[in-house]
Amino acid sequence: MNSSTETRRLTAKGRATRDRIVAAAAAVMYDQGVAGTSTEDVLTAAQVSSPSQLYHYFGDKKSLVQAVIEYQTERVLGFQRPLLRRLDSFEALEAWRDAVVQAQHARGCRGGCPIGSLASELSDADPQARTKLAEGYAQWEGAIRDGLASMQERGELDEEADAGDLSLALLTALQGGLLMTQMRRDTLALEAVLNAMIDRIRCHAVG
Amino acid sequence: MNSSTETRRLTAKGRATRDRIVAAAAAVMYDQGVAGTSTEDVLTAAQVSSPSQLYHYFGDKKSLVQAVIEYQTERVLGFQRPLLRRLDSFEALEAWRDAVVQAQHARGCRGGCPIGSLASELSDADPQARTKLAEGYAQWEGAIRDGLASMQERGELDEEADAGDLSLALLTALQGGLLMTQMRRDTLALEAVLNAMIDRIRCHAVG
Repeated sequence: MNSSTETRRLTAKGRATRDRIVAAAAAVMYDQGVAGTSTEDVLTAAQVSSPSQLYHYFGDKKSLVQAVIEYQTERVLGFQRPLLRRLDSFEALEAWRDAVVQAQHARGCRGGCPIGSLASELSDADPQARTKLAEGYAQWEGAIRDGLASMQERGELDEEADAGDLSLALLTALQGGLLMTQMRRDTLALEAVLNAMIDRIRCHAVG
Repeated sequence: MNSSTETRRLTAKGRATRDRIVAAAAAVMYDQGVAGTSTEDVLTAAQVSSPSQLYHYFGDKKSLVQAVIEYQTERVLGFQRPLLRRLDSFEALEAWRDAVVQAQHARGCRGGCPIGSLASELSDADPQARTKLAEGYAQWEGAIRDGLASMQERGELDEEADAGDLSLALLTALQGGLLMTQMRRDTLALEAVLNAMIDRIRCHAVG
């Protein structure tokens, strides 16, 4: 984003440093929240000695937060991408549900959704962050919608199914489920809401 | 909570001051997050001049946060209570959905769920807060479950309906919908997920 300020000679090394700062900032902000993360925290986590290096890549905390949102969106969607790319059958929806539930168990049901946590904290306070988060959610929703639309095109869902509404509802249910997992320290609410949504979609199954 | 430290003579006045501090802290924390709220912010908002007054009622920030969680739980459930008390028909479920959606519009789709926002920020960092939040959610879920169980007892839902699973899923869907409302600044996701869940419950309707 601020790469125009870097010289061509520094590009490769600079990019690596920038990436290291973003990954470190994302991890600290995930643990402590954005408001609870100081410049010092980011420098320590990224093993960067001087604040000027941070300011070189990110003029202010808001531009670092923008990069963290991009990073977390790519990480979450990257993890789900193999499943999202072919989310076009009930077996695939169930496999995606299982993978999401399993991922929560793997981290002790802590942390919630890396994107949802940022959305909860930043949506009101930082309009640019909100816009960036909305872009990430739109990608996510689009991937789910594509799968449902494919099922409908193949005649596996009836004509009454609204792929747009159902994909938005499924993503929204997932967000609620991840928040409740974090609060409850178990995946019962996540499983209940994803099962209910998959059952809801199944009401449109043909044959 | 700390009322045992107050003298009997001060009870009425003390209670009023304590309540004013909690309400003010809740409002500031709702706007700025818990981490983004300083003692000074709370004193200013509550129009309390001395930090010692704050410490008199709340030994530390965590005990103030406990009181804020209780306050927000009572406020959210209080607002919904007339509807939650008789959430035992599809008409009542739809009226509850409409009231929730309308409440979001009334505040410009900002802020998200007062309890959910606290859950997102505090669940990992503050175990006591997480316990208190879980108690609030359990009350909320119980009220929804009672209504569905009544419908089932009256034979309006079939025997396959699991009132426990469905109430947990509905509350979880609501949490996702409130987060998405805050992020999107519209209620489309909230409406989509609540409609999908009510439709899901309707699959169990008898007659």
